[in-house]
Amino acid sequence: MSELFDPVLAAGAVRDEVSDAAWLRALLDVEAALAQAEADAGVVPREHAERIAEVCREGYFDVAEIGAKSVGVGNPAAPLVREITTKVGGEAARYVHLGATSQDIVDSAAMLVAKRALEALREDVEAAAEHAARLAREHAGTVQAGRTLLQQAIPVTFGFTAAGWLSGLDSAARRLAQLRPAAQLGGATGTLASLGEAGPAVLAAFSRRLDLAEPALPWHTERTRIAELTGALGELSGVVGGASRTITLLAQTEVAEVAEIAEGSGGSSTMPHKRNPVAAVAAQAAAQQAPGLVATLLAAMTQEHQRAAGSWHAEWRPLTELFRGTGSAVHWLRTSFERLRVDPARMRQNLDATGGAILSERVTTELAKDTGRLAAHDAVTACTKRALAGEGALADLLAEDPLVGKHLSRERIERLLDPADYLGSARVFVERALAAHAERKGSS
Amino acid sequence: MSELFDPVLAAGAVRDEVSDAAWLRALLDVEAALAQAEADAGVVPREHAERIAEVCREGYFDVAEIGAKSVGVGNPAAPLVREITTKVGGEAARYVHLGATSQDIVDSAAMLVAKRALEALREDVEAAAEHAARLAREHAGTVQAGRTLLQQAIPVTFGFTAAGWLSGLDSAARRLAQLRPAAQLGGATGTLASLGEAGPAVLAAFSRRLDLAEPALPWHTERTRIAELTGALGELSGVVGGASRTITLLAQTEVAEVAEIAEGSGGSSTMPHKRNPVAAVAAQAAAQQAPGLVATLLAAMTQEHQRAAGSWHAEWRPLTELFRGTGSAVHWLRTSFERLRVDPARMRQNLDATGGAILSERVTTELAKDTGRLAAHDAVTACTKRALAGEGALADLLAEDPLVGKHLSRERIERLLDPADYLGSARVFVERALAAHAERKGSS
Amino acid sequence: MSELFDPVLAAGAVRDEVSDAAWLRALLDVEAALAQAEADAGVVPREHAERIAEVCREGYFDVAEIGAKSVGVGNPAAPLVREITTKVGGEAARYVHLGATSQDIVDSAAMLVAKRALEALREDVEAAAEHAARLAREHAGTVQAGRTLLQQAIPVTFGFTAAGWLSGLDSAARRLAQLRPAAQLGGATGTLASLGEAGPAVLAAFSRRLDLAEPALPWHTERTRIAELTGALGELSGVVGGASRTITLLAQTEVAEVAEIAEGSGGSSTMPHKRNPVAAVAAQAAAQQAPGLVATLLAAMTQEHQRAAGSWHAEWRPLTELFRGTGSAVHWLRTSFERLRVDPARMRQNLDATGGAILSERVTTELAKDTGRLAAHDAVTACTKRALAGEGALADLLAEDPLVGKHLSRERIERLLDPADYLGSARVFVERALAAHAERKGSS
Amino acid sequence: MSELFDPVLAAGAVRDEVSDAAWLRALLDVEAALAQAEADAGVVPREHAERIAEVCREGYFDVAEIGAKSVGVGNPAAPLVREITTKVGGEAARYVHLGATSQDIVDSAAMLVAKRALEALREDVEAAAEHAARLAREHAGTVQAGRTLLQQAIPVTFGFTAAGWLSGLDSAARRLAQLRPAAQLGGATGTLASLGEAGPAVLAAFSRRLDLAEPALPWHTERTRIAELTGALGELSGVVGGASRTITLLAQTEVAEVAEIAEGSGGSSTMPHKRNPVAAVAAQAAAQQAPGLVATLLAAMTQEHQRAAGSWHAEWRPLTELFRGTGSAVHWLRTSFERLRVDPARMRQNLDATGGAILSERVTTELAKDTGRLAAHDAVTACTKRALAGEGALADLLAEDPLVGKHLSRERIERLLDPADYLGSARVFVERALAAHAERKGSS
Repeated sequence: MSELFDPVLAAGAVRDEVSDAAWLRALLDVEAALAQAEADAGVVPREHAERIAEVCREGYFDVAEIGAKSVGVGNPAAPLVREITTKVGGEAARYVHLGATSQDIVDSAAMLVAKRALEALREDVEAAAEHAARLAREHAGTVQAGRTLLQQAIPVTFGFTAAGWLSGLDSAARRLAQLRPAAQLGGATGTLASLGEAGPAVLAAFSRRLDLAEPALPWHTERTRIAELTGALGELSGVVGGASRTITLLAQTEVAEVAEIAEGSGGSSTMPHKRNPVAAVAAQAAAQQAPGLVATLLAAMTQEHQRAAGSWHAEWRPLTELFRGTGSAVHWLRTSFERLRVDPARMRQNLDATGGAILSERVTTELAKDTGRLAAHDAVTACTKRALAGEGALADLLAEDPLVGKHLSRERIERLLDPADYLGSARVFVERALAAHAERKGSS
Repeated sequence: MSELFDPVLAAGAVRDEVSDAAWLRALLDVEAALAQAEADAGVVPREHAERIAEVCREGYFDVAEIGAKSVGVGNPAAPLVREITTKVGGEAARYVHLGATSQDIVDSAAMLVAKRALEALREDVEAAAEHAARLAREHAGTVQAGRTLLQQAIPVTFGFTAAGWLSGLDSAARRLAQLRPAAQLGGATGTLASLGEAGPAVLAAFSRRLDLAEPALPWHTERTRIAELTGALGELSGVVGGASRTITLLAQTEVAEVAEIAEGSGGSSTMPHKRNPVAAVAAQAAAQQAPGLVATLLAAMTQEHQRAAGSWHAEWRPLTELFRGTGSAVHWLRTSFERLRVDPARMRQNLDATGGAILSERVTTELAKDTGRLAAHDAVTACTKRALAGEGALADLLAEDPLVGKHLSRERIERLLDPADYLGSARVFVERALAAHAERKGSS
Repeated sequence: MSELFDPVLAAGAVRDEVSDAAWLRALLDVEAALAQAEADAGVVPREHAERIAEVCREGYFDVAEIGAKSVGVGNPAAPLVREITTKVGGEAARYVHLGATSQDIVDSAAMLVAKRALEALREDVEAAAEHAARLAREHAGTVQAGRTLLQQAIPVTFGFTAAGWLSGLDSAARRLAQLRPAAQLGGATGTLASLGEAGPAVLAAFSRRLDLAEPALPWHTERTRIAELTGALGELSGVVGGASRTITLLAQTEVAEVAEIAEGSGGSSTMPHKRNPVAAVAAQAAAQQAPGLVATLLAAMTQEHQRAAGSWHAEWRPLTELFRGTGSAVHWLRTSFERLRVDPARMRQNLDATGGAILSERVTTELAKDTGRLAAHDAVTACTKRALAGEGALADLLAEDPLVGKHLSRERIERLLDPADYLGSARVFVERALAAHAERKGSS
Repeated sequence: MSELFDPVLAAGAVRDEVSDAAWLRALLDVEAALAQAEADAGVVPREHAERIAEVCREGYFDVAEIGAKSVGVGNPAAPLVREITTKVGGEAARYVHLGATSQDIVDSAAMLVAKRALEALREDVEAAAEHAARLAREHAGTVQAGRTLLQQAIPVTFGFTAAGWLSGLDSAARRLAQLRPAAQLGGATGTLASLGEAGPAVLAAFSRRLDLAEPALPWHTERTRIAELTGALGELSGVVGGASRTITLLAQTEVAEVAEIAEGSGGSSTMPHKRNPVAAVAAQAAAQQAPGLVATLLAAMTQEHQRAAGSWHAEWRPLTELFRGTGSAVHWLRTSFERLRVDPARMRQNLDATGGAILSERVTTELAKDTGRLAAHDAVTACTKRALAGEGALADLLAEDPLVGKHLSRERIERLLDPADYLGSARVFVERALAAHAERKGSS
């Protein structure tokens, strides 16, 4: 909610779904649904319910005014109810907000906001996942240095790297799909006392009208629903954190295996050689917001008695921010994927950085079949160290080594040192990731 | 892992499941399962696999020594493998750890540890939930002041309060039940390159032998599994945080609606009137550990390339601590429930603290049917303020009020002010919570 | 930056100091100071610097437009520079932003924003501290039950309780006073390369003109300044968390030792007996935001090389939010203090809740001088348990007890059970807290 | 406190200072100091105090037994006091723990533990800072690519990079040096009631004997001291996080500007070309623990009344872990610095990766003096893009460009493209960092 920073820090479609306007819309939708549900249950005359719903649907409400008036009671529902009541007027006014407490309205609105924000979020998640799937498919054969502890290890394919991103996004999407935001309705202490016998019927109708899950009982201080929402968003942000970090690393000047190419982005006015992966950087920055916000929301689960003195109010900001941050993270990752130019030639070239040494494990394994592991390891390590020291090409040094040369032919050595020939199950794993993705999409 | 603090801070059965001994056991189980799975897949001669498994099962390994030797490479798997290899000896030694990387072993062991710890944890969760269910059932008719923002509001029952705890524990238990810890096996960069074509078959057999889920592909830097475990534990800790907080509040000297009664606990040697709810306090302290640990684990999801330079190692401690803390939280909540002596008489007495004022909403609602809300509100508020100021019993003042007295008889007023008569759906909600609990138990 | 929620969640004067407008003002002030500092150092002709400063001071800049244009490069400084340059025009335009990088501008602006926000914050801190000092002074003799683990223990005074709040606020204020926000200027990689020899002179003049500390060297990725700011705000929020929590507890219906009394606040439209301590609740909610935000900012200290790929951008939001939250927390605590009505009679009455048992420690101590601790403890405990069980007044039971009665007269027992006679150093400690407060004020 | 993981995760000397044994030692030291201080103040006969001190100094206490017995009351001080009392025996036994509450003992012990751990920590901090200073000094002229957003920008020196690390360590050391751990003594509710008039005298003597700061008043629920300790450790961990991250990046196979060289560390048994920067990786992992632990400790500041129900107990583990983690982080950073082999030739070589493009800003700046910025920027950018596309050496392309060639000679262009000639204030900043370091050392 900053015109200055949001374009970078709260990019994408989720932002608007958790804006003041979206919250106000949701609060009004909840009051409308309440009146209508009470009409469904025979508690409120239908015409009065319709009048209330009409005001909620069409009336003009000033967000700033409601906000300003909220300080007396500590939440925006109370002044909004007063405003609705005034606008409704007449007999129907008596039925506004009937039986509900402020927290019923704010919690139900929060769930409605969450539901709508999740839809916007999922769109970006799916788009990002499709890009990852495409990269996995297209580059299933693009050999790349596998890197562990930021050191080159044995080869992978870029498709395999992308399959990891896809798998993470699919897991997070599966988790999002399990979320069932629920309605909240309990009255002052959760018993729906002022609705008499009609409580359960109203709760059922209210949930149905809001298209939210019906809870077994009010959850004013039982915040597992917030925890699950929070956990799912935190997990998704974490997936973006990993993928975007890897992209910024692959885009390093010295690695240059990928670049974000986009008109008007990432260039430096003063340093034309720079190709800043701006989208991945912004994704990274957004993803870093989540852990602290999740911690705040989990800590706020310590809510006492029937309605809490502070921990409930403590949820509004971090929940909104978590949506904004996660939405931005996913939006920027999607954008980064869209902009990504992959350079298979450079990938291949980087594999040669160690003069074949990254495949020495393989030679060791082969040789060990004849010589035992220890002898194989010693011989290959010696050659590798010499190659790394610039004493010659590894293939030559190995072929010339008495022990190695005795057991492995020159041709065999060369094939053993060919990265494309040592990819193990990389292709199978890519296929499995794509299949799991397809299955998820099919089932959703 | 502190003899001084653990009895309070890491109580219960979970602690032992994440101890050094438990981790070592799991690491050895994983190496054994790997060899056997490779025999299943025809990669390793059966007798060698059995030899390896035997050493892992029966050999003595010195935890401290392995720990000490881990500094060279940065994780305990490597020195353990060397030790196993030495102990296995002969031809079979060549097949120890075949095709795996250290992270395969540590991650799979972590999941094994998690699986076993979750079993221990669930036992305490179920016991705590049973206690909550019992309290909900037994006290479905025990009237209690409902409290919002730490102020008395309208009545609830203590059973309804307990049903909220039950509902939270059931949600958390449902989430725990969804967890499917998965095996990890990928070799140096996740491709299982050194296993050639046999990779997938080995992975399947390995997962089966460990009774862990088989992942579609290695997840060395795709940490959604850690996030889901983390989220579930954080949610459970949050539930304990809320329940234990409420218990400490109900046990206050001035409230005294519940007390923890236990031989040798909670008394103060110097202040004999004190009844410290030690178990609830310890539960609260343990529950407070979770949010920060969850944040650490979510932040550590930012893992790059094929295996991460630091963020992976950063998981071990907080994951262990999160289990210890959550286990302790649940253990102490269960203990608090066991010790809980409920005082229905005091609950009733506390309801009179405001001289009936907490039911003034009800009188307002009834009166409003005849007089309109505004007039009703003004009249009842005036009487309530006089009653709170000590000018008389609320029932008397209301009966004497011209407007109120005109519309409501003395008997009606007294019934309206009877807390037991204004419980709305409290009993229905208790039943729904118990039914949901029974259903969960039935389906698990 | 939400019209709906900010009145509650971001109350007080700090909010405006970290608004979009405040950030824009600071960014412009920084660009102006840069040009002028470069004129001071002879790098830029004075008239051009004045032209730039004039545009920065008086020009109209559209926050939303600059925000929208920031996505290409990832921060708002670059589009702002372009806009300034256009407005300046002519020869002077060449000197806009000379030698600086975007991060120089944003970091320096952040420090300027922080400096101004700290001033606003300190005003509320001082006002809150004055209230605490007043309460400590006025109630230095107001006896109150001391409470530990939420159980009544031995007496304190309310002045002593308030002195604890004062002490916390003073500590936090002392820490705030130590903060020295510093200027940032390093150019692309921190070397001020394009300023040639003039770098240090420009840096000195730039810092002086902004009235910010001059750093020994640029701190683009050395974020201890952010950590110190963060830590001080987190500490202050923690102080508010403790004080506001205690207020909500003292205001409980069953305790009722304090109440927030304010026109239009804290009442419940439907529950007239409620006196919600709305300000303390809002303070509590705001204070709970800090720990997670501090964690985010500390985690973002992991900034690599000369300028970071994401962790820098990750600071803007949580820093702004931390100011907003801490500002709101302090504002609401101050407000709560202002509204606080203290009820010494009720405090005295609550002390009688245990029928004198809370002073049994004292009787034990006295008696032990004659009988030894064990015998004293057993005798007093027995009497206390009988008193708590309703068998009589503690003074009577003690006087009648053979062992106690033998060593202590009835008058002595009664004095020993008088809370006002067992306050130890409470008054001295209040005076020490007030003296420390006066000293801090004197030295600042 | 894990033999398996601590060698990596809790390395260095700090671990032992926060062990069970260290805590027990501190608890005993506190009880001894209390008795002696009370003798100093004339409250306890000297010989009894000496007897108590002797038992605390020389008696054998079983940590596990004390831990086991702590569950009844919820902290280890109570059973320890019982054990000391038994051991002391006779008349002196009456004076054990006189006037104190458990929290006095545990808090004072915590501060003693902190004080000792800080000494161990500072040693590693100073050693790390000396290494950083040495690197800054030795490599003040070693040209290196400056990197922003993980892209090469304009040159720096490696000494300048190291000076940034030095500056961070110095800031953190300055903050550590400001910490003044304070004694805690207040009795049951902080009033020192049972000490009568002697309270302040005992408090003064107690603080003096423990060599801890004397607080103005007890701080049982005023936890700014914990916050300041926490903040300082979190800041230090953050400094390590940044430095260690940069080292792992500089050590990448494709960058290879530094390597950790140590016998027995960092090699991979199967991948001999790898040089895992194990120490920097372990530092990174340790540093990542801090933010979440700091959040836990700040959240635990919400302590109510005179002594808190849970939030106090919630501090012990994270405080211990924060020391262990920060100690490990600094130890490993120091170790990484010790092992660091710097490769100036490779640094120079990496600067050529963009064929001179990283200095194009400089050519633009020079050219702009004659042509205006826009024309200069366009001309240089065009040449740079051609150079990056492989169309020729940048110097040649620039010299051949009509606009550039007209204003800048070939020699001038070559000098402008020489990284060693474009270091701005890098050397000055190194000197300033070294001077600030020397000054801090001199003043401490």
